[in-house]
Amino acid sequence: MFITFEGVDGSGKSTQLRFLSEHLELIGRKYIIVREPGTTEVGEKIRDILLDRNNTAMSPVTEAMLYAAARVQLIDEVIKPALDKGVTVLCDRYIDSSVAYQAFGRGLGVDAVLKMNDYAVKNCLPDITFFIDVSPEAAGERMHSRTDLDRLELESLAFKDRVYQGFLYMAEREPERIIRIDASGSKQETREKILSHIGRITS
Amino acid sequence: MFITFEGVDGSGKSTQLRFLSEHLELIGRKYIIVREPGTTEVGEKIRDILLDRNNTAMSPVTEAMLYAAARVQLIDEVIKPALDKGVTVLCDRYIDSSVAYQAFGRGLGVDAVLKMNDYAVKNCLPDITFFIDVSPEAAGERMHSRTDLDRLELESLAFKDRVYQGFLYMAEREPERIIRIDASGSKQETREKILSHIGRITS
Repeated sequence: MFITFEGVDGSGKSTQLRFLSEHLELIGRKYIIVREPGTTEVGEKIRDILLDRNNTAMSPVTEAMLYAAARVQLIDEVIKPALDKGVTVLCDRYIDSSVAYQAFGRGLGVDAVLKMNDYAVKNCLPDITFFIDVSPEAAGERMHSRTDLDRLELESLAFKDRVYQGFLYMAEREPERIIRIDASGSKQETREKILSHIGRITS
Repeated sequence: MFITFEGVDGSGKSTQLRFLSEHLELIGRKYIIVREPGTTEVGEKIRDILLDRNNTAMSPVTEAMLYAAARVQLIDEVIKPALDKGVTVLCDRYIDSSVAYQAFGRGLGVDAVLKMNDYAVKNCLPDITFFIDVSPEAAGERMHSRTDLDRLELESLAFKDRVYQGFLYMAEREPERIIRIDASGSKQETREKILSHIGRITS
């Protein structure tokens, strides 16, 4: 099973991914956790370029292609081999983040971004995607105390609003795959909502 | 005018590019020299990943996408602004190298590679491409004494033969743009052949 977590920065998706991994541990399921961009050696080097605050001149198309390049490396080197062995893969961000950030945030358009990610989408689409639905305003408050923000986290609220619209668009476009989780409550409430879906799937 | 130089490693294309730049200097033409992958800050970081001999696990699709990403950055940041100002751009490797190395060398196929480079091809195709035609065997002899070979230069002769076939394929596919220069003679002879074409174009 290939499960991805999506949402705006500060939505708490990484925490929810960890909660789910603890649940899988408890029920004795083999799993691995990967993150995008990165995890592989080549991917982490690409991540460094993407998140470096000094790379202010980066073209939006270059940005989208670098995410796609790191994704393909992750699929070929880690995700596919794990799935082939029956190991569950939990992935922090995936194709929907490319649509949200590059197609909507940067304005490249959905078709252009999906075309660049053709290889990823064709070869390795998630079985379930949890969209942790927190508005950029609410997420921004959670991130308020952090001072180590990266190149994308430093973007304007208008950018983050477009990103959020991108996630909503994908959730509407692919309702079979993407489960929208209202995360306005506590972390534990969100955790329970996610586990209720997992229980139905793993049983 | 946008002029690219293509050919296998050791074909002497960089030397010929320099010769042409000296000629442009002489006739008072404004020009810049760029190289692929690289030249831009982001592009040079991508270059480091691509040529690093330690990145042995790199997926062929990732490799092709990284070249395309660096190319887009170069177009947006350097090539287009220069051409807009009437400056001639001399570029060491471009789209044809992607077809030769990734489509033929790695076996990804021409359609897949051109699709990844759609943005580059649509927005910024060279006016002239000089394909410095030296066989991989002859080029290999010229490179024999070098010890600092990068990840792609270290590939097998079978790989380099496929790359060479890729250049021949593109030269046949786009005879209007790509001028095949027989470079089996001396450097000066090759230089004269190139200048005879340039004279026709710049006069």
